[in-house]
Amino acid sequence: MTDLELDVFGPEPWLQIGERAFRSRLLLGVEQYTEPALVRDVLDGSGADVFITTYDLERTRSSLLLSDLDRELDLDRFIWIGTTSFAHSAADAVATARQLRTALGLDIIKLDVRDTTNMPDAEATILAAKELLADGFSLLPFILPEVETARVLEGMGCSALRLMAAPVASYRGIVDAEPLRACMDAVEIPTVVEGGIGSPADVTRAFELGADAVLVNTLVARAASPERMARAVRHAALAGGLVRA
Amino acid sequence: MTDLELDVFGPEPWLQIGERAFRSRLLLGVEQYTEPALVRDVLDGSGADVFITTYDLERTRSSLLLSDLDRELDLDRFIWIGTTSFAHSAADAVATARQLRTALGLDIIKLDVRDTTNMPDAEATILAAKELLADGFSLLPFILPEVETARVLEGMGCSALRLMAAPVASYRGIVDAEPLRACMDAVEIPTVVEGGIGSPADVTRAFELGADAVLVNTLVARAASPERMARAVRHAALAGGLVRA
Repeated sequence: MTDLELDVFGPEPWLQIGERAFRSRLLLGVEQYTEPALVRDVLDGSGADVFITTYDLERTRSSLLLSDLDRELDLDRFIWIGTTSFAHSAADAVATARQLRTALGLDIIKLDVRDTTNMPDAEATILAAKELLADGFSLLPFILPEVETARVLEGMGCSALRLMAAPVASYRGIVDAEPLRACMDAVEIPTVVEGGIGSPADVTRAFELGADAVLVNTLVARAASPERMARAVRHAALAGGLVRA
Repeated sequence: MTDLELDVFGPEPWLQIGERAFRSRLLLGVEQYTEPALVRDVLDGSGADVFITTYDLERTRSSLLLSDLDRELDLDRFIWIGTTSFAHSAADAVATARQLRTALGLDIIKLDVRDTTNMPDAEATILAAKELLADGFSLLPFILPEVETARVLEGMGCSALRLMAAPVASYRGIVDAEPLRACMDAVEIPTVVEGGIGSPADVTRAFELGADAVLVNTLVARAASPERMARAVRHAALAGGLVRA
């Protein structure tokens, strides 16, 4: 793959937070892996430049030890962001973010507050965002593709919005493109499509709709060959990027 | 792009006719172009290894002169096949194929017989196929995704089947995957998805369904940048190929 091919989206990062420039259009969740070498392979295969980590309030650690991961891959080359994807209340999310800052110095948070059915809880997310923004965090909240919620979070100062395509791990893909497109049109901050991505074709489609980035997780983690699927979604992103402009 | 990436479908050609091995999973219609240099760029960008040409019974030549094309690209590196895509009767298709053999020595035919609404005419296609197979041609007929028609043409000895996803030039994509999948399951010869491909995501999707190859035409020819779209569909095919196996 030539540099030209990787630059299909243009030379500008899709998201800039302080000095940190997010260039790869693929974000990969890596909390479902049990082998550090596989985390390395999928991150390499996908071309991701973001490393997402968490602090599980229940289990007090993420599934893989950072020390083990660090032996397999050069963690320094990634932009580190924290996630609150295990949080089921605003208070949980705020506590997780603060622990991630205390323990790892993270100040960019992939903010998730899920309801009892594991869907984004808009009210709790806005509540947590308010507190964390006041704390000086930069936020990428996960929401249903609702224009009103999107506008509120943009107005509050969030850095980017993660729009749910379909329920997490559902493999249902982009069933209804209209709400996603409406949110992309309604805000000026970058948008990430995430949740339920069921195949590489969905990744391409997300970019065709105008997404700035796509976050995949279960599709890669549960694939017969995660490394192969990581390369597939990378090609899918390149395909989408070539027609997005 | 590394050789490895291009070999995602495995080292075997998807179609072998005599000594001619079809390796690229993308077929590109090139009859809509008016600039030989653009034909070169889209064929290069897509990685296609097949050159499709025709003999227009009405206009007695295709839109670009082969001599002009030959100045822009090394036509010898392609597998040449003829198309009867302008034919509206079995007799037209047979006559076109015979002219293509007489004039250019072609014996592999992308067989199309369209009805008055430009849809594949199964009855006329079977009629033309019977005559052309008896003449010693190898055929890739274009049909609606109907299992019965697919089985008849396979039984007659066609080399591969081109299954219509959506009406030609409609950009509607793969609206209904089931009939395509049913045909792929019903026959053992290779299948090509073609017609109405509306975006690179449709190309990826076709391979995810199990297609052996995809033929794109209008999507590339009418794109703002055909060369860029050709590269996009190539990445889309690579993405699909990585998850097809």
